[in-house]
Amino acid sequence: MERYKNFEIEEIGKIYTEFDEPKGVPIQPSYERKHKGRIDIHPEFEKGLTDLEGFSHIILLFYFHKSETTRLEVIPFLDTVVRGVYATRAPVRPNRIGLSIVELVSREGNILHVQGVDMVNGTPLLDIKPYVGGFDIPKMSSGNVRIGWLKDFVDESGKRKADSRFQK
Amino acid sequence: MERYKNFEIEEIGKIYTEFDEPKGVPIQPSYERKHKGRIDIHPEFEKGLTDLEGFSHIILLFYFHKSETTRLEVIPFLDTVVRGVYATRAPVRPNRIGLSIVELVSREGNILHVQGVDMVNGTPLLDIKPYVGGFDIPKMSSGNVRIGWLKDFVDESGKRKADSRFQK
Repeated sequence: MERYKNFEIEEIGKIYTEFDEPKGVPIQPSYERKHKGRIDIHPEFEKGLTDLEGFSHIILLFYFHKSETTRLEVIPFLDTVVRGVYATRAPVRPNRIGLSIVELVSREGNILHVQGVDMVNGTPLLDIKPYVGGFDIPKMSSGNVRIGWLKDFVDESGKRKADSRFQK
Repeated sequence: MERYKNFEIEEIGKIYTEFDEPKGVPIQPSYERKHKGRIDIHPEFEKGLTDLEGFSHIILLFYFHKSETTRLEVIPFLDTVVRGVYATRAPVRPNRIGLSIVELVSREGNILHVQGVDMVNGTPLLDIKPYVGGFDIPKMSSGNVRIGWLKDFVDESGKRKADSRFQK
């Protein structure tokens, strides 16, 4: 089967945050959900936001526009071992699409006020999806959710474990 | 701030399922997590899959390649009212990127066997991210998660409520 090539991708808005550079950005928003941000949706897409304010949390898909390299193997922030990029959230991935779930504080027309941002100021937004627990949380009934190499670094709630790697 | 335009997007693999047409595809995988699928990652990206098998669930970002129109307002499957497309998961969205969380059953080199698929056979894959509950489940501490118009149609676990719309 031939590879699909006709991807039509455009910026639907911009995400404004306090982070001017990738350095200093929270690694995942669940660690620190305090950072506020603003999303300006380009006016021609505003109609698509109708009813969004009914959702407390939204999934943002955005483009890591500050990432200029692509790598298949990375040493993740939490780790000291080389991992496959698809087992991480690193920005250097092919296609460079980022995903974060943020709280939707309010909407004023084409402006969204959000909390829990972890992206660089000026990040191009590609998509918004409503967060729905039942759709997005795997059912635990078939056994525990396993989180691979991350189990040594974060607990089940996503909170970082005390780091003892460099202690004697 | 100028709009970002230099998106580099390519297919990293293909998702094979039993659904040859969009009709018949489960609306969200949580309703029916029984459908098995296979993902063939193109060989040049295989190295990026290292360590992925440690995760029980993975997030797939894919392209709705069968969707040829873009609309900002839709009547969702569950509803009878027009909604903004960003308050839905409809494929006709600008940028047509789909998101599903599936169970990773096993990996053999560049082949992933997955369960809980809800995409059409031959769907182009854009990205894989490890599913980590703590990163992806909003903290409930700040109040309940609200799911907007969907609250009439699905319960908290994502299960569809009995549909009484057309009953007398």
